[in-house]
Amino acid sequence: MLTSLKRFLIGRPLKSAEAGEHKLNKLKALAILSSDALSSVAYGTEQILLVLVTVGATAFWYSLPIAVGVLILLLALILSYRQIIFSYPHGGGAYVVSKENLGVNYGLVAGGSLLVDYILTVAVSISAGTDAITSAFPALHTHNVSIAVVLVILITILNLRGLTESASILAYPVYLFVVALLIMIGVGLYHIATGHVPASAHTPVGTPVAGLTLFLLLRAFASGCSALTGVEAISNAIPNFKEPRPNNAAKTLIMMGLLLAVLFTGVTFLAYWYGIAPKGEETVVSQIAAETFGRNYIYYFIQGTTALILVLAANTGYSAFPLLAYNLAADKFMPRMYTMRGDRLGYSNGIITLGIGSIILIVAFKGKTENLIPLYAVGVFIPFTLSQSGMILKWLREKPKGWISKLTANLIGALITLTVLMIFFVTKFIQVWSILIFLPLIIIMFHRIHRHYMDVSDQLRLESEQRPVPIEGNAIIVPVAGMTRVVENSLNYARTLSDQVIAVHVAFDRRSEKRFEEEWVKWQPDIRLVTLHSQYRSIVQPLTKFIDTAQHKARESNYWVTVLIPQFITKKNWHNILHNQSSLLIRAYLLYKRNVVVTTVPYRFKK
Amino acid sequence: MLTSLKRFLIGRPLKSAEAGEHKLNKLKALAILSSDALSSVAYGTEQILLVLVTVGATAFWYSLPIAVGVLILLLALILSYRQIIFSYPHGGGAYVVSKENLGVNYGLVAGGSLLVDYILTVAVSISAGTDAITSAFPALHTHNVSIAVVLVILITILNLRGLTESASILAYPVYLFVVALLIMIGVGLYHIATGHVPASAHTPVGTPVAGLTLFLLLRAFASGCSALTGVEAISNAIPNFKEPRPNNAAKTLIMMGLLLAVLFTGVTFLAYWYGIAPKGEETVVSQIAAETFGRNYIYYFIQGTTALILVLAANTGYSAFPLLAYNLAADKFMPRMYTMRGDRLGYSNGIITLGIGSIILIVAFKGKTENLIPLYAVGVFIPFTLSQSGMILKWLREKPKGWISKLTANLIGALITLTVLMIFFVTKFIQVWSILIFLPLIIIMFHRIHRHYMDVSDQLRLESEQRPVPIEGNAIIVPVAGMTRVVENSLNYARTLSDQVIAVHVAFDRRSEKRFEEEWVKWQPDIRLVTLHSQYRSIVQPLTKFIDTAQHKARESNYWVTVLIPQFITKKNWHNILHNQSSLLIRAYLLYKRNVVVTTVPYRFKK
Repeated sequence: MLTSLKRFLIGRPLKSAEAGEHKLNKLKALAILSSDALSSVAYGTEQILLVLVTVGATAFWYSLPIAVGVLILLLALILSYRQIIFSYPHGGGAYVVSKENLGVNYGLVAGGSLLVDYILTVAVSISAGTDAITSAFPALHTHNVSIAVVLVILITILNLRGLTESASILAYPVYLFVVALLIMIGVGLYHIATGHVPASAHTPVGTPVAGLTLFLLLRAFASGCSALTGVEAISNAIPNFKEPRPNNAAKTLIMMGLLLAVLFTGVTFLAYWYGIAPKGEETVVSQIAAETFGRNYIYYFIQGTTALILVLAANTGYSAFPLLAYNLAADKFMPRMYTMRGDRLGYSNGIITLGIGSIILIVAFKGKTENLIPLYAVGVFIPFTLSQSGMILKWLREKPKGWISKLTANLIGALITLTVLMIFFVTKFIQVWSILIFLPLIIIMFHRIHRHYMDVSDQLRLESEQRPVPIEGNAIIVPVAGMTRVVENSLNYARTLSDQVIAVHVAFDRRSEKRFEEEWVKWQPDIRLVTLHSQYRSIVQPLTKFIDTAQHKARESNYWVTVLIPQFITKKNWHNILHNQSSLLIRAYLLYKRNVVVTTVPYRFKK
Repeated sequence: MLTSLKRFLIGRPLKSAEAGEHKLNKLKALAILSSDALSSVAYGTEQILLVLVTVGATAFWYSLPIAVGVLILLLALILSYRQIIFSYPHGGGAYVVSKENLGVNYGLVAGGSLLVDYILTVAVSISAGTDAITSAFPALHTHNVSIAVVLVILITILNLRGLTESASILAYPVYLFVVALLIMIGVGLYHIATGHVPASAHTPVGTPVAGLTLFLLLRAFASGCSALTGVEAISNAIPNFKEPRPNNAAKTLIMMGLLLAVLFTGVTFLAYWYGIAPKGEETVVSQIAAETFGRNYIYYFIQGTTALILVLAANTGYSAFPLLAYNLAADKFMPRMYTMRGDRLGYSNGIITLGIGSIILIVAFKGKTENLIPLYAVGVFIPFTLSQSGMILKWLREKPKGWISKLTANLIGALITLTVLMIFFVTKFIQVWSILIFLPLIIIMFHRIHRHYMDVSDQLRLESEQRPVPIEGNAIIVPVAGMTRVVENSLNYARTLSDQVIAVHVAFDRRSEKRFEEEWVKWQPDIRLVTLHSQYRSIVQPLTKFIDTAQHKARESNYWVTVLIPQFITKKNWHNILHNQSSLLIRAYLLYKRNVVVTTVPYRFKK
């Protein structure tokens, strides 16, 4: 039944040979790889305003200089990532770049924070997408968490079915979103130019604001940087581009940077001009759209495409996380199961882990985007900084043609991202301290897993020193509960394996013990019976004691002890609770605690 | 760790020889076996008033004639149970009496409703005990459910430790409760006699009441009958009495009846005279006590002993349920696990089932006693009626000396209890209909379990027709994942068992397949290797297919197929998630679906 549910949800299994991918042209790549970055526009401006509003609406004009700061940072990032694209044409994830240039531990820091970050990408994007939906339909607002969880489950199932990043259908929502936002910005600017928006809605640039501190401004800037999450996506996906890959990827990156800059500037400017304040139950973009068009079909179109692109942004997490987990697992830093392809050729375990992780985050943070975003941004800026630093070392080491200008670009990138990171820790410590606990724990976990795999391969290697123990013969122990057809069957089987077969019976009282022995001699005169008395009504205990002794003796003459246990196979599942399954208990105990070979002889009931 | 927690909670295991019980004298038996019946006084009166209050406080005087009705019923029950005691000196539970006289199905109806009923005994008694506690300490009222659940867990643990009914310490709370209630009734009557209680508090007997229907009166009567639950306890426990058992038991039964009559009458009369109305957050007994003494130490003493006796009443469920489950399991109507004595010699599985069942009921009904009591009472009156009817048939069949008067007593008993049962179904159908669903389901379950056990013993019997298949030899299949020390170990072992050893390797791509075959020939030239190609990255599927073929061929020459699977035993538990445990999957699949003998060779990692 479980199997057919699985088939219904994720479809028939695919053959390994069916793997393959078609390459992306620039326009499609732009759409598909930019959803994460472009969708940040949906919450970036809002994050800035949420900080400024704490000193009052007069401070809103500061969002403009802060936006300029974010744009400068964006420029630096684009330039540095352009270099990574050319240096790592096979895909330069922060894990690879940091590991190769800075060393394994830095790679693990980058990898660990990215893993956490992809989970946050899903949680944040889905929560923000849900916000876009509930802004449009306020009646749904109380169901935020449930809607978000259902969306995550849906995306997880789609990905288990094998929704790849290259599916053309995923490109349209991004185009629609860009078009929708450009229209909104255009119409908004037209309204402003034609004087339809009263200037009284906003405080003029330069108005002095009481209580505004540098600390607060930095905090607002750090919040605004959340608009830059997702910029790294293109540099990870170079193998998906058409040839010449690096050139196409670099051009796409620049197009994306331009689009992001235009949309972010436009939204921030309109929010400022309209004098929009952040509200708990309606997003800033929704307010701008409502202000520009009223709540007509264009408004719903904008909200719809926003929700869609945010869901798509979550989907990029589903491409990136399993791949990173695969890389870490291939390097033996994560459990091997992350290297296995599922029925539909996706790395199912990674997909499922991501889905569960983000649901836990959404529920724990009650779907409140603003509580997740600082953590998310920190998680992004750690690998940003590490990969830029890695590139610096690479240039210093390799010194290729024109390395000084290359180094400068990455140096500026590294410095800026490091600064932003420090601003985060200084201004939002309460929201991001937990990463200082989690990250070291994850790194320790990576190392312990690695140690274990190394230990195992040491022990499995044929060339290892310990020679296998020679086996001279086998003693077979058959625990018998009564004189039944099942026991007869097991004894017959045991006889074919060895001459040394011993039946063991555990008796609970002396009288039945004696009777059993007498009947046994008549029934199986050629097989030695040992009866054990159990004072505590336990079967496992006296049996184990006996087997310990037998094993000790057997070892002296290089004999192996095998315990032969009959196992009832009931016709219907529910019948199992009617049998005590002591065979399962005995088997597990002997295998795990005593290192005894256990043979299970199934006996299938026919009715 | 689990084991040491278990040891701490329930103590060291006891030897079977330590079983034994000492016999009860009348006075102690009275105390210990009456707690269930006497504790009903704590809620019986309240149940009557809860019905009457629906037409108004003027109807309260009707509680007196209703109480008279209940007393008559009590008399009939005592007389009939006296006869059961003499006829079934080994303990005449309703299950035994009905099964022997009316047939198996009636016995199962009685047994089934008693099983449900014991769970309800625990739920109702503990909830009522909690009510007594929270009446005294109103601040605790919101924690009713949690307090009740904690109490159930405590009693369950105590019973797992082996708290037997015969523990002397259990007698004191009953004495104290009887003394406390007698004092309360005495002082109350004295206050009334000396005119301290204004007559205006109650409406005089005979006041006409608007809106009172026969239906409502019957309903109130039915509710009052809940005061009679637990009367059957003595007749089940005759083996625990000192000799001459039946006489002592009969005398104890009559003493209990008298005490119950006095306490119930006293409480009902005081409640009427004081004009007490049932309240959600304070019990009727608590109100009477507060009215009589004020909230001083005597009040708290009364509440305390009431809570204690109710908890003890729950404890009688813990003696009765496991014993009944044992009887049903011994007759093969319930899973065999209910016949096993636990570490402390109690029937642990029954105790745990009862604890879990009553916690579920308490939580589902939010600890509201009044919602559970109707179901509880119906569950009691079904076996009441059945055992009386069984006795009638017994007298008709055996016709001993004076059988006509004996028959008359049981006939009256049967008629009255049947009438009460019908009143229940007519007046409280909404609250008790569920028993009409559950009871048939339980009976069906009993029968299906019985059928299965009969089928199994048929199939296990040595005399059955099918002769065992002769075994001419063994073919051993060893699935190999690589060329490691573990595989070497398994192959060496396999060689000692049979000459026919086949290694099977599942490959995912053609190239590695070929390389593997080449290296194998160099490594193990004497063992035949079969490589299987898996298109769907599944190991189980191609392996199963191969084994099916092998088994088919082997069967022709009476060979058995054994699959030999190496199983890693990791040094630490968490290491297990780092291995894919495909061996577990393969083993389970082959055992349960394919009927193949599976040998597990443990390979213990040393680090």
